Amino acid sequence: MSTERIFNFSAGPAVLPEIVLDEASRHLKSLRDSGMSVLEMSHRSQEVSEIFDSAVANIRILANVPDDYHVLFLQGGATQQFAMVPLNLLSENGSADYVITGSWSKKAFKEAQRFGSVRIVGSSEDQDFVRIPTEHELEFSSDAEYLHITSNNTIFGTQWRSTPPGSTTAPVVVDASSDIFSRPIDVSRHGLIYAGAQKNLGPAGVTLVIVKDEIIRTKKLPERVPTMLRYATFADSASLYNTPPVFAIYIVGLVVKWLLQKGGLTAVAESNEQKAGKLYSILDSSNFYQGTADPHSRSLMNVTFRLPNEELEKRFLTQATNAGLVGLKGHRSVGGLRASIYNAFPEEGVETLTSFMREFERKSG
Amino acid sequence: MSTERIFNFSAGPAVLPEIVLDEASRHLKSLRDSGMSVLEMSHRSQEVSEIFDSAVANIRILANVPDDYHVLFLQGGATQQFAMVPLNLLSENGSADYVITGSWSKKAFKEAQRFGSVRIVGSSEDQDFVRIPTEHELEFSSDAEYLHITSNNTIFGTQWRSTPPGSTTAPVVVDASSDIFSRPIDVSRHGLIYAGAQKNLGPAGVTLVIVKDEIIRTKKLPERVPTMLRYATFADSASLYNTPPVFAIYIVGLVVKWLLQKGGLTAVAESNEQKAGKLYSILDSSNFYQGTADPHSRSLMNVTFRLPNEELEKRFLTQATNAGLVGLKGHRSVGGLRASIYNAFPEEGVETLTSFMREFERKSG
Repeated sequence: MSTERIFNFSAGPAVLPEIVLDEASRHLKSLRDSGMSVLEMSHRSQEVSEIFDSAVANIRILANVPDDYHVLFLQGGATQQFAMVPLNLLSENGSADYVITGSWSKKAFKEAQRFGSVRIVGSSEDQDFVRIPTEHELEFSSDAEYLHITSNNTIFGTQWRSTPPGSTTAPVVVDASSDIFSRPIDVSRHGLIYAGAQKNLGPAGVTLVIVKDEIIRTKKLPERVPTMLRYATFADSASLYNTPPVFAIYIVGLVVKWLLQKGGLTAVAESNEQKAGKLYSILDSSNFYQGTADPHSRSLMNVTFRLPNEELEKRFLTQATNAGLVGLKGHRSVGGLRASIYNAFPEEGVETLTSFMREFERKSG
Repeated sequence: MSTERIFNFSAGPAVLPEIVLDEASRHLKSLRDSGMSVLEMSHRSQEVSEIFDSAVANIRILANVPDDYHVLFLQGGATQQFAMVPLNLLSENGSADYVITGSWSKKAFKEAQRFGSVRIVGSSEDQDFVRIPTEHELEFSSDAEYLHITSNNTIFGTQWRSTPPGSTTAPVVVDASSDIFSRPIDVSRHGLIYAGAQKNLGPAGVTLVIVKDEIIRTKKLPERVPTMLRYATFADSASLYNTPPVFAIYIVGLVVKWLLQKGGLTAVAESNEQKAGKLYSILDSSNFYQGTADPHSRSLMNVTFRLPNEELEKRFLTQATNAGLVGLKGHRSVGGLRASIYNAFPEEGVETLTSFMREFERKSG
């Protein structure tokens, strides 16, 4: 890491691989020998076509995406997906299942209620979302048109061990915004996977959608569904129905290339487990630091913890910031501390944080 | 201009001010002394708040935006606005007026038909869109909830002399994607102005919306209007309801600062008139080059013209590209040539093109 950069534990937008920033800044005024910035290029130019095609092809390789799935780039973040999913998949007389594991799945559920009948088939809200419900706690509906889950919960530091949950027969829709491509995933067992890019994939401003062709073709959508909220609009135009967010897709392409160079999702998962493991082992071996998530539901992306009191938490944050460890404040809705350590977060930063934590405990414990 | 950059006549995404690219590339790895890229910064951080606040404040100064108008940053481009406008402003039993001056206004009209009753109150389609209808050709409805126009038509090279058209009483909604901030505008006489950023304002991936508070408050929207398609969602959160496209807004902020430094909209308009004037004077003084737009409706942003035959047009394009003049091909739906010379397009590039045109005519005419 260059000396000028600090360790950025932000929950998203979040740290990007330094090699990606290097390449982007080197080419910002002129992409290769084109004489223009990628920020200035027509989305229908040869250069941008190559950037898009290569991003899609590399995502297909990275996640072993089957041929009957589209890899699409949309706008509006996960929040717009909260509406698009039911608008495209929920029939007027049908219904869908939602598992509530945190603030984001609640928002997804609430938004879906605008468009039809949706049911909560599992929730850990009565336990303050410190855990993911186990399989036998979930009561899937037999007639659900889809099941929606949020694979990782940034605020509460919890994560499904894997997706999809075993016994559902409905197509599974996963909001994977905060753990996309952090570990291997069997795409073929999902109906639709969506992810705002700004945590594990790139900058804010683009949403990756991987969707099975079949599930966006079977329903005839009502006239009043806007063109830009129809998956078919993007599937039929290779994400080029209108001007897409070219630069954000360019950066996602660079990040995906970097993930492949790291050895793909198995290697990435190993690195993520090591990073998170170091932090959880401090929480487990200390009476000073208290992990907030149930150990069986712990997230490899967001490690949430408390100190003995808020005064100490405040001091911890100030001293950490001064030591070049920034973004460690927990979400305003729950307080405490949170270390977000997405794919691009360097191991060196985790080492620095664990040393800092040991030293802080020694001085204050 | 640095020698490595070429002259980019693309219709959008389009050329950006070189000074903006310089600043962005200098800070791409670390914004000022923050130790992180603006691509990695939390949208709720102090740094990003300052970037947003200053972009909005400078837009207010630049266009003299009244206090009862919101300045918002959305996603989805003008195409998503084609749906948002009627979803927010058109009542179930109401109707709205549309003037059709090209492909984009046709698309806006067609999308609006999904949501209610809309009328065409003027069109130049029967004249192949070579002109903007005159005021007395427009038949505004007395009960229209809004009037929608497209201020500049990139494909046909036409532009309204000014907006809004004089005699309508309904709130005027303008798609200004291709001429926003290219000349002074009386915002107070408009209900809503929207613009995809990628022509005159910044990179693709963000849409500027300037909207009067009153017109987004009077109607109670049906439950089924998605949260992300409600202007109030963005107005009530200062565009921070969910993660906005931070980097695109950052670049828009730099472009707006540059427009102010150039002397504001009057100075910008003068420069645009000069640039376009040079090209139109070639078209007017030559039998070789034929302007396609009616002289009274000519655009200052997109200068469209034909050569005596397609063979010559092809040769023109090839030789222009070799001379470092790129992106001059007309839209695939109309053919011919098009020089897009938005705010950021340098005068030097227009000089180079006019010289090239004279020389090409001499050799081929």
